[in-house]
Amino acid sequence: MTTETLDRPDGLAGQPEFGEVYARVQHFYAHQMQLFDRHDADGWAATFTQDAVFSVPTLDAPVRGRAHLAANVLRNRRRQEDSGEQHRHWIGMLDVRPGPDGALRTRCYALVYVTPRGGSSRLLRVCVMEDELVPGEGGWLTRRRVVTRDDLACGRGTA
Amino acid sequence: MTTETLDRPDGLAGQPEFGEVYARVQHFYAHQMQLFDRHDADGWAATFTQDAVFSVPTLDAPVRGRAHLAANVLRNRRRQEDSGEQHRHWIGMLDVRPGPDGALRTRCYALVYVTPRGGSSRLLRVCVMEDELVPGEGGWLTRRRVVTRDDLACGRGTA
Amino acid sequence: MTTETLDRPDGLAGQPEFGEVYARVQHFYAHQMQLFDRHDADGWAATFTQDAVFSVPTLDAPVRGRAHLAANVLRNRRRQEDSGEQHRHWIGMLDVRPGPDGALRTRCYALVYVTPRGGSSRLLRVCVMEDELVPGEGGWLTRRRVVTRDDLACGRGTA
Repeated sequence: MTTETLDRPDGLAGQPEFGEVYARVQHFYAHQMQLFDRHDADGWAATFTQDAVFSVPTLDAPVRGRAHLAANVLRNRRRQEDSGEQHRHWIGMLDVRPGPDGALRTRCYALVYVTPRGGSSRLLRVCVMEDELVPGEGGWLTRRRVVTRDDLACGRGTA
Repeated sequence: MTTETLDRPDGLAGQPEFGEVYARVQHFYAHQMQLFDRHDADGWAATFTQDAVFSVPTLDAPVRGRAHLAANVLRNRRRQEDSGEQHRHWIGMLDVRPGPDGALRTRCYALVYVTPRGGSSRLLRVCVMEDELVPGEGGWLTRRRVVTRDDLACGRGTA
Repeated sequence: MTTETLDRPDGLAGQPEFGEVYARVQHFYAHQMQLFDRHDADGWAATFTQDAVFSVPTLDAPVRGRAHLAANVLRNRRRQEDSGEQHRHWIGMLDVRPGPDGALRTRCYALVYVTPRGGSSRLLRVCVMEDELVPGEGGWLTRRRVVTRDDLACGRGTA
């Protein structure tokens, strides 16, 4: 587990512009998730750093770098075209804290909804997502992401 | 489809006050959705411009103007009083970009939850909502809205 | 019912820094809900005032004060350890308005998701949450909370 103690809001929250930063990070994630659900492989990969590391329990090994990240989106696109399902990734309960070297550490919940063509929408998955964000051209970039799934997690009382 | 390319955050996001604008737009939607779910027909209609156009796949034709918008809320109220169901509309993954003439263009996901009296809550619908917002008295007003439902959408890979 | 009329955005929304306040309140709730779901009893209780009153329909009487609030979290922890279920509390559609004496009044929707170990996640509950927030050390504190559940509510058309 990569969880950490979530203390009371700290130095960052005490800064005069914290709300401005927080709202921009929310926007970053809204944009990033919309690109993912549209299967915009290159657009989505460009919201990560060149050397980003992405760990998610449904993949055998962490994904490294934009080219591999984009390839995953294209694989998702093919799967969803075959199945006729539309996925929607939804972020919330976003905590933002200062990280090393001007980076931000975020921890949020992530839901995945799925809708089959002509069928009923349903909740597919509840996850926790932890990111390290660094400043990049035009906004933030994800340098490192770890996703845990509630259905697979162990020791979840502290997850 | 009214979808557009979602580029990397653009000019608006580069402005010093973008987070301030973004948070206010979030608040606008929270307020607007609460009015809708309370069946406050006039209050909700007042969050649209006088000549607003509202397109949603469950209606045969776009709704035009505040009087017709309010009438739809009253129809919903009667239906839900008859059925004993409480609906909750939930917005998220909100993208905000500059539109023409000081307007904003937004694109977000919209979920509808329904709870029968004494029964289990469930997810009713997953939608994408695209708005054009213009400045009005006391905040933003919706001038144009297009809602697409994931269960009805075609060509959804790019939706 | 403790509901009130939700007027058009008022004095607070007209203030130049409203977006800054709104984003910080969002962050407060994200932090507070994460503490709750991690069963961090003392951390969560510390986001309430010493004399806070918490009313929720699943408890026979309102909970008063940090010690009793913390005890509830520990009881939840034991229950969830026994059942193997992970709960996630999710806040949205947050309305924020000025209250008396520099306090804020908030009204939002609250969802509860539950995931059994190795099983499918599901929506457990849809609620409305109304808070009174007061400034405290390092941010806001909840002084009073009233939660209503959509499945139990009566007169829900105005809820």
